[in-house]
Amino acid sequence: MRDVAIIGVGMNKWGEVWESTLRDMFVEAALESIKDAGVDHLDGMYVGSMTPGLFVGQEHIGSMLADYLGMKGLPGTRVESACASGGLALKSAVLEIASGHSDIILAGGVEKMTDCSGDDATYALATAADQEYEVFHGATFPGLYAMMARRHMHEFGTTREQLAHVAVKNHKNGAKNPKAQYPFEVTLEGVMTSVMVADPMRILDCSPITDGAACVIVADLETAKKYTNNPAVKITGFGHATDNIALHSRDSLTCLEATKLAGERAYKMAGRKPEDIDVCEVHDCFTIAEIMVIEDLGFFEKGKGGTGAESGETHIGGRIPVNTSGGLKSKGHPVGATGIAQAYEITTQLRGEAGDRQVEGAKVGLCQNMGGSGGSTVVHIMEVV
Amino acid sequence: MRDVAIIGVGMNKWGEVWESTLRDMFVEAALESIKDAGVDHLDGMYVGSMTPGLFVGQEHIGSMLADYLGMKGLPGTRVESACASGGLALKSAVLEIASGHSDIILAGGVEKMTDCSGDDATYALATAADQEYEVFHGATFPGLYAMMARRHMHEFGTTREQLAHVAVKNHKNGAKNPKAQYPFEVTLEGVMTSVMVADPMRILDCSPITDGAACVIVADLETAKKYTNNPAVKITGFGHATDNIALHSRDSLTCLEATKLAGERAYKMAGRKPEDIDVCEVHDCFTIAEIMVIEDLGFFEKGKGGTGAESGETHIGGRIPVNTSGGLKSKGHPVGATGIAQAYEITTQLRGEAGDRQVEGAKVGLCQNMGGSGGSTVVHIMEVV
Repeated sequence: MRDVAIIGVGMNKWGEVWESTLRDMFVEAALESIKDAGVDHLDGMYVGSMTPGLFVGQEHIGSMLADYLGMKGLPGTRVESACASGGLALKSAVLEIASGHSDIILAGGVEKMTDCSGDDATYALATAADQEYEVFHGATFPGLYAMMARRHMHEFGTTREQLAHVAVKNHKNGAKNPKAQYPFEVTLEGVMTSVMVADPMRILDCSPITDGAACVIVADLETAKKYTNNPAVKITGFGHATDNIALHSRDSLTCLEATKLAGERAYKMAGRKPEDIDVCEVHDCFTIAEIMVIEDLGFFEKGKGGTGAESGETHIGGRIPVNTSGGLKSKGHPVGATGIAQAYEITTQLRGEAGDRQVEGAKVGLCQNMGGSGGSTVVHIMEVV
Repeated sequence: MRDVAIIGVGMNKWGEVWESTLRDMFVEAALESIKDAGVDHLDGMYVGSMTPGLFVGQEHIGSMLADYLGMKGLPGTRVESACASGGLALKSAVLEIASGHSDIILAGGVEKMTDCSGDDATYALATAADQEYEVFHGATFPGLYAMMARRHMHEFGTTREQLAHVAVKNHKNGAKNPKAQYPFEVTLEGVMTSVMVADPMRILDCSPITDGAACVIVADLETAKKYTNNPAVKITGFGHATDNIALHSRDSLTCLEATKLAGERAYKMAGRKPEDIDVCEVHDCFTIAEIMVIEDLGFFEKGKGGTGAESGETHIGGRIPVNTSGGLKSKGHPVGATGIAQAYEITTQLRGEAGDRQVEGAKVGLCQNMGGSGGSTVVHIMEVV
């Protein structure tokens, strides 16, 4: 397999984007990434999107987006794994470059979530859970993650304050990210007294509904040199795994097995260990998710993830900075775009271009993108060459 | 890139499958393909499905189907390109094997279309067209293809009878396929007097709404030898292309540019020409589609495709047998599964196991799978090694 690197990145300003459609946002992010990479053509395109069919009545977006990008003819593939769709688009692009079939591929993600009502968005998102055995009985994602949180608190003594510290830390980072949906800080008290959604998950424990797109340009190292002086950010390892889609089928509510397995696969491929990682973006769809993920990726002992944000270890300047972009919590969570935006952030960090939120001397980064309540996970490890 | 072959195939009996869910049908087809290939594990899975979100309220099927197949942990990826989703799943699997990252992959397709109402199914299918510029104004797929048919008749003198001959031929083939949804013959008069849907498309010019799944097992040639005595059906070429998603953006209503381009790419990669193909499965979602496709793949001069079924040239025993399985018309069209079922048929033909519908001496086959009104196309060329 050939070595593969990210040589360009782009994304629009995330939020409630009333003035743009799905196609507009995607084209904006795509053109920015193409310009950043300096490439004059693409050999293919992968787009992660969870459910444009339910959100905006549009499937077949591989064709539609190639068309609106002015690149009719381009092989365009949509991939989907719920909220891990973006990470999967990147993995697919990496594999195609690695195979030698193509040299330059755009991997993007997009979701336009605010064009439908809140009820409809809750229904659309719930299609990431088991429709026949969970959703039919009334389960929603805040409810599923609330059960995980309660069990984590019961088994390990994780506190309500520790959950809140994740939100406080991520908003502190997001306040320094001009592309974030909610670029402002929140206080511990503000999180602790925010509206209850599904006990113990309060509204400030939950990632928002967001419109957004993100794109990266992926190429083999030889091609990369032809087009750009940007430091090539090499993808040295990736891992992809699934778990039981429904919570009730799992051995444990407090271990995200797909994340563990995908992480192990990525570490093995890259020849890296958790302690080699300088900066990471993880899937904090809810505050409890970040806590469980940083345990299952090996950054914290199982049960100790709650101490990460509370102690400062996961802050910028800490032992293992987590979600320097603001994470899903503050940057926003247009579900299909999230995995690509993680790669955008880690690329920016490894290039040393993250401004106020830069992790000094970051050489090795990791992205962890998760679908549903953990039914699928994609992990990438990236390093400056 | 490593050489890749199909070493096992499976599909359920297609139709209105009231007694099975999407997951049941997929598992049935998957287990049949695994048994046929004789493999004892999988390294990954790609599933083509157009819109399970709209049809049955379930996204995230890469996770769900790995789970229900008893293979929790397996990297499962859903790919989508409307009705070309199945072909794209196969292409994705081929690329991953070619890269050397995996040795054995299941490429499947599935759609459960009859669990929603007819109106809902029409809406769900229309998401393959341009929602903002076509569907919003009332366009449906029979209407879009009817416009192509009218223009083809106007430009080239294609007759109403020639359209009907496609349906008659495909039902004649499908009558010999035990997995077909409508395994019976229809007469020329029957087609010509069937209910009008969108002039000149009558109900027997249209492929049906179908529940179904199909799977193939793909492996590199070395691995293939370890597991099976089946003749390895090598994928010697593939092509994937897009076109303007909306009809009104195209230079011509009678040329399917994505099909032309995908065909050219596949022929080039395989080192083959149209005259080398012994048998093919093409995307006859409407009778006019088969006529245009066999022109754009180079089997007939542009404008002469209408003579194919009428003259017998595309019948079994003719110059270039087309849709020996019965095609979408008689076998059925569970949209995401169609591309994989085409590979099932060509594999069966090249192995010499097609029974009453066998094309004698078939050595080189082709599958053409198309999304929407031609906005995307995937072509595979397969040969017995």
